[in-house]
Amino acid sequence: MSQLNGKKLKLTVFGQSHSKAIGAVIEGLPAGIKLDTDAIQAFLDRRRPGKNKLSTARNEIDMPIILSGITDGVTCGAPLAVMFENSDTRSADYAELKRFPRPSHADYPAFVKHNGNNDIRGGGQFSGRLTAPIVFAGAICDGILRQRGITVGAHVASIGGASDSRFDAVSLSGAQLEELRHKEIPVINDGAAERIKLEIMSARNDLDSVGGAIEAAVLGLPAGIGGELFDGVESSLSAALFGIPAVKAVEFGLGTEFAKMRGSASNDPYRMQNGEVITSTNNMGGISGGITNGMPLIFKVTVKPTPSIARAQQTVDLKNRCDAELEIKGRHDPCICIRAVPVVEAVTAFTVLDMLYNEKG
Amino acid sequence: MSQLNGKKLKLTVFGQSHSKAIGAVIEGLPAGIKLDTDAIQAFLDRRRPGKNKLSTARNEIDMPIILSGITDGVTCGAPLAVMFENSDTRSADYAELKRFPRPSHADYPAFVKHNGNNDIRGGGQFSGRLTAPIVFAGAICDGILRQRGITVGAHVASIGGASDSRFDAVSLSGAQLEELRHKEIPVINDGAAERIKLEIMSARNDLDSVGGAIEAAVLGLPAGIGGELFDGVESSLSAALFGIPAVKAVEFGLGTEFAKMRGSASNDPYRMQNGEVITSTNNMGGISGGITNGMPLIFKVTVKPTPSIARAQQTVDLKNRCDAELEIKGRHDPCICIRAVPVVEAVTAFTVLDMLYNEKG
Amino acid sequence: MSQLNGKKLKLTVFGQSHSKAIGAVIEGLPAGIKLDTDAIQAFLDRRRPGKNKLSTARNEIDMPIILSGITDGVTCGAPLAVMFENSDTRSADYAELKRFPRPSHADYPAFVKHNGNNDIRGGGQFSGRLTAPIVFAGAICDGILRQRGITVGAHVASIGGASDSRFDAVSLSGAQLEELRHKEIPVINDGAAERIKLEIMSARNDLDSVGGAIEAAVLGLPAGIGGELFDGVESSLSAALFGIPAVKAVEFGLGTEFAKMRGSASNDPYRMQNGEVITSTNNMGGISGGITNGMPLIFKVTVKPTPSIARAQQTVDLKNRCDAELEIKGRHDPCICIRAVPVVEAVTAFTVLDMLYNEKG
Amino acid sequence: MSQLNGKKLKLTVFGQSHSKAIGAVIEGLPAGIKLDTDAIQAFLDRRRPGKNKLSTARNEIDMPIILSGITDGVTCGAPLAVMFENSDTRSADYAELKRFPRPSHADYPAFVKHNGNNDIRGGGQFSGRLTAPIVFAGAICDGILRQRGITVGAHVASIGGASDSRFDAVSLSGAQLEELRHKEIPVINDGAAERIKLEIMSARNDLDSVGGAIEAAVLGLPAGIGGELFDGVESSLSAALFGIPAVKAVEFGLGTEFAKMRGSASNDPYRMQNGEVITSTNNMGGISGGITNGMPLIFKVTVKPTPSIARAQQTVDLKNRCDAELEIKGRHDPCICIRAVPVVEAVTAFTVLDMLYNEKG
Repeated sequence: MSQLNGKKLKLTVFGQSHSKAIGAVIEGLPAGIKLDTDAIQAFLDRRRPGKNKLSTARNEIDMPIILSGITDGVTCGAPLAVMFENSDTRSADYAELKRFPRPSHADYPAFVKHNGNNDIRGGGQFSGRLTAPIVFAGAICDGILRQRGITVGAHVASIGGASDSRFDAVSLSGAQLEELRHKEIPVINDGAAERIKLEIMSARNDLDSVGGAIEAAVLGLPAGIGGELFDGVESSLSAALFGIPAVKAVEFGLGTEFAKMRGSASNDPYRMQNGEVITSTNNMGGISGGITNGMPLIFKVTVKPTPSIARAQQTVDLKNRCDAELEIKGRHDPCICIRAVPVVEAVTAFTVLDMLYNEKG
Repeated sequence: MSQLNGKKLKLTVFGQSHSKAIGAVIEGLPAGIKLDTDAIQAFLDRRRPGKNKLSTARNEIDMPIILSGITDGVTCGAPLAVMFENSDTRSADYAELKRFPRPSHADYPAFVKHNGNNDIRGGGQFSGRLTAPIVFAGAICDGILRQRGITVGAHVASIGGASDSRFDAVSLSGAQLEELRHKEIPVINDGAAERIKLEIMSARNDLDSVGGAIEAAVLGLPAGIGGELFDGVESSLSAALFGIPAVKAVEFGLGTEFAKMRGSASNDPYRMQNGEVITSTNNMGGISGGITNGMPLIFKVTVKPTPSIARAQQTVDLKNRCDAELEIKGRHDPCICIRAVPVVEAVTAFTVLDMLYNEKG
Repeated sequence: MSQLNGKKLKLTVFGQSHSKAIGAVIEGLPAGIKLDTDAIQAFLDRRRPGKNKLSTARNEIDMPIILSGITDGVTCGAPLAVMFENSDTRSADYAELKRFPRPSHADYPAFVKHNGNNDIRGGGQFSGRLTAPIVFAGAICDGILRQRGITVGAHVASIGGASDSRFDAVSLSGAQLEELRHKEIPVINDGAAERIKLEIMSARNDLDSVGGAIEAAVLGLPAGIGGELFDGVESSLSAALFGIPAVKAVEFGLGTEFAKMRGSASNDPYRMQNGEVITSTNNMGGISGGITNGMPLIFKVTVKPTPSIARAQQTVDLKNRCDAELEIKGRHDPCICIRAVPVVEAVTAFTVLDMLYNEKG
Repeated sequence: MSQLNGKKLKLTVFGQSHSKAIGAVIEGLPAGIKLDTDAIQAFLDRRRPGKNKLSTARNEIDMPIILSGITDGVTCGAPLAVMFENSDTRSADYAELKRFPRPSHADYPAFVKHNGNNDIRGGGQFSGRLTAPIVFAGAICDGILRQRGITVGAHVASIGGASDSRFDAVSLSGAQLEELRHKEIPVINDGAAERIKLEIMSARNDLDSVGGAIEAAVLGLPAGIGGELFDGVESSLSAALFGIPAVKAVEFGLGTEFAKMRGSASNDPYRMQNGEVITSTNNMGGISGGITNGMPLIFKVTVKPTPSIARAQQTVDLKNRCDAELEIKGRHDPCICIRAVPVVEAVTAFTVLDMLYNEKG
């Protein structure tokens, strides 16, 4: 199922890269929400490829067509269905891939799962293009969260060998998150942008691709959201984040660094500040016992290098059951990490809003 | 909800550390499964504390009492309910914690969530003790998987500064996984065991705790399990794994290392071997596009240091709303990473069996 | 949520009567199913209004546009999304209804639920038109069931004072069910058709509407489908059937007649026939203890009279909060019972196929 | 799965008639609810058999043992687990039933479903005894609803040929519902009680059983609860009600009577009363378009005659695959309709509270 199945919000994503359309049905939004179409389009534009040489040359027009759920620009309580028509597709590019699966792509696993009936064109339902309706849904949730004083944001933490600074997990501000959304490459430290560009251009020139990491934050969340064991914030968020194609690691707070630490260093001491309970450090990323503690929610996702590279690669011939060599045609991103930033924000906004609705109504 | 909510299997966990009992209800197991009580008890014993100085002094008797679902030692198709009575509880140790929350523990978030009605004794529903019924359920699933030729296993990858070798992601064998289950400290490289003991004893002597990491594997899984987007194996497994108390990071395959890599290095080339499609490396950890590719499933979880440490810590007084100092009484693990190994295996076995049942019946 | 949430199949319905489109997303269909578009269109045509004077004059063109999930006429394993564009809408007809709610229609409850933001045009998301995508989904499931030797069918049991015969619950044949699908008014006893027409024409002439009942059957279901308590076939089917607008009663087997009966008369004795266990009567409608027993599944639904009638009715003015009189404009069915027959079949086929997939793979 | 799976509340029922214990886990109750143990026990006592000659001679002691979720008599936010130990079981009575299935009981379908591994003793998981934990859960919900001004109640509408009056669907009061709970046989018209007793005694004397019907009501529900299509109140409630063993029909408002009616007679006209919108009749049973309209919620369930009767019956021998005759030993109710009244109330209270929590927080 392609469902992001929250407790109050459900997101059902449909479509393949080269089907007539892709889209989503969003259920559970309250009636009376006014859509800010400019903000939604701006969110979508950050995901859209074809803007520059850092991404695929496929020129997707990400124009959402709302099929239902909106009356006079406002949610009417019915499921909100949206579609994006597919165009500029070159299905011929993909004709051979069913026989010669691309390494580390979904081609072969999907072939087995669907007995060879999978739609291979453009990556089918595994295409990054499917994130467009996810971003649409997340942009709506992001707008609702803002009205409740909650801000979601993310930046490129690193791409290849080029790293950005980390968020200040205690004193990060909504203005900083907002500023990141207006940068061509969303980094805290502007010097990192140039280094990142070089990493990507270098990978492209080498007919290769490169991975990266994204750090995200949610500010303004009240304490007490989430629950014990499998109902924890980490479980809900990670399930959503691993739904983004190419994500291979999710870390909360200091994440993998905890393995080397002592409790006396990792624990976040409480103290009172203006009558509020805060912590003086925020190594936990705002979650203890699966429940928010009122500090900024901080996490990081790792995005693997795009598996579609132009270099010749070793693969198999599924028809003749023998080894083979593959040269992938088509237009592919050398690095999807930058375009994945709004997707991470979208998936986070959706999940956080669902938790809020569930807990607070 | 404390539910591990698979598509075919449901695990509902109940209980608090000091309630009359803890337990679980397991739904969806087919009728006719014979329980191997020795294997289940051996699984539980690996999780049990009190065996040596490396864990808490609380002497828990993990004796499962089956309430329903079994007739003549065999599943009858009704939900399988199990309970573990709580004993050797010292609730008085916890009397002050509601007022003075332990840093980085669930005390404060749970206090806010439940308006002060949370059961603070022994960590309440957030106690690691709740993993006993989870292990019970996982041990049953583990037995069913073995009969289908699927092996689940895990080892301590590192604790503090002491590291074990990593699994050989291509040629790892079921015998190696089995052997790990019989070691006092489950490590591949026996030299690591001594270094790990020293790390833990050193933390204990310093009235401190220490974190670690666990690497896990599933062998024998067919290709084609999982699905696109939010239905991927990574989403299902991570949601389950983050349900284990103290887990703060989940990585599949090379995980966070992907951020620095090129696609030409990270991609796993296909080749034919004895008529089967395999990959010559296994950086993806056996999953591409959210679907298994037939190679070993490999992932790693990071376990934070136990937040309950004996050293004085800074906290707040929730009654008088001011800063305070806390010295935690009670018996606590200096490191839960070793005891978490069977829990990781259990949660994995449950999730993998659910995916298999869903896909293959 | 507008979801028919099976264990393996999910149907998400979207749209309002006068939105840009209505449609559905169907998840969980296996890859490799060839769509029989003629059979699907024939199913849709049975639901379509505008065929004669027995139904609304609105001329809906029920032309399904498949957005995703089908490649070369065959399911590819991705969610199947379908839409029906809305046309021939006369929104002006509905302008006043938000102020003057139609008695026994969703207008007022939806107004309260959605704080006045509900889409009132054409009944919004409560319109019978929303059953078109449901029928589309059911028609696909119906085709799959036929290939497994399972037949779904239904007939008009009664409309107003005109009654048809009941199914022979023991010896009903698939051929009889098939024959019903080709009749203008699906009744067993052809004489009933004329009486039914008279009932409907009489109601129409009186500016009124009339209710009815539909009896349905599923043949060929194996014994052992369903489960105890809330997992029973009756629970699953009734939840789906009450999702059809206007359904107000669901009865299995002899239904309400059981209240007057003795066990010695209602029990269905077992006997062997050609090596198979059968029952010599089938008062239970093929289900005991929530599980199928291998006999025909038989149930009945009652459809209330269409609430939209042309006669003047007493209502309230929600603006001035006073009593008011209402004369409904627009084009409405005097009886939806005949058009509801394929909807009942569709919902049944969907639910039964889901139970089969869940039980048998 | 034996789950009553609400949106906010989950009820997982476990146990077989003769297992060590039966019980339930209730999730989603807010922390801070004080349990009224007297009210719960009174609710359970209404369900308990062995009180008089109208029910089975099995003397069940329905003593709930709370395992978790309650601290100092108040919910603590953890799942509430309860068990009832099984005693006074006579498993020997059931030894032959696996071979000779009781007509219209779950024996044969469960045998097929579970490949002969089902627990046949006392009806296993299909026993009416499993309703004890359901009543426990419902009694808690009933208490919470009362504090919100919502009253749930039910009466025996008929047993065999003996009928009670129907509720006045417009002016029914909470006091009337309360009064019914204190009657030995809950009927509106006291004269009906004697006729009902005669029906039951007569069936018992004839070694037979008899069916009946229960009418239920919920007062005080606000308008706007529920949703369109499959999210309607009728879908949720019917799925829960058909989970009660022996229920074979569920009708809302006038139910099956709608089939004969005209819209002009069945529609409930709106009018203003003291500034509130009401309807002058309540044929719809308080629901239009799947959503409550603020009028009393009224519905009826039909309970089939107990299939376990003492008379000789025709069945099959599953061992020798031939016809056979069966005389059921053991202690069985001649009519479960009276005992089912609190079960209907419990299931209703649970479902209604879940809908309220979902809608209103």
